[in-house]
Amino acid sequence: MATQLSSDERVQGLAPLLKDGGWKLEKERDAISKSFLFDNFNSAFAFMTSVAMKAEKMDHHPEWFNVYNRVNITLSTHDCQGLSTRDVALASYIDKAAAKFV
Amino acid sequence: MATQLSSDERVQGLAPLLKDGGWKLEKERDAISKSFLFDNFNSAFAFMTSVAMKAEKMDHHPEWFNVYNRVNITLSTHDCQGLSTRDVALASYIDKAAAKFV
Repeated sequence: MATQLSSDERVQGLAPLLKDGGWKLEKERDAISKSFLFDNFNSAFAFMTSVAMKAEKMDHHPEWFNVYNRVNITLSTHDCQGLSTRDVALASYIDKAAAKFV
Repeated sequence: MATQLSSDERVQGLAPLLKDGGWKLEKERDAISKSFLFDNFNSAFAFMTSVAMKAEKMDHHPEWFNVYNRVNITLSTHDCQGLSTRDVALASYIDKAAAKFV
């Protein structure tokens, strides 16, 4: 079972994503979100495919919306009803994947 | 340029999607939407990949949201600010694709 991020984990894992990574804390629940823009649908969906494979391997899946070249992603952990280390790990992967497709 | 569905096209193309296909007209704009449930994320994303390739080939893309085994899709045509024959064609493809992955 995943557990919610500890105070230390929030400082060390989450804070960098919020400060420099462009992720934002959701207002209504303990979750983070970010919007990505690509050149076109081909690139956006290639990015999504990369994230989908990682998510399936982690057994930790995003909530995401896509229209054409835009992908909005929200991460949270169902098991613990909030942010866990899985979200930090997936967010880091997502940022690296996005960089390959822009 | 796409044009909005004519009255005849609404009866012949759109009505069957709404009557038996489970698609719903959006309230706030001329668009249709439908929610699909699969066994798991693997099947949901396999379905999305099939739709993505068709959409790219048609140069007509869905607005869609996915979380785990659920995919919500909205179709409308940007060019004509409403439903066109492209949406009817893509919706028909989507229903066939979904049937392969449930």
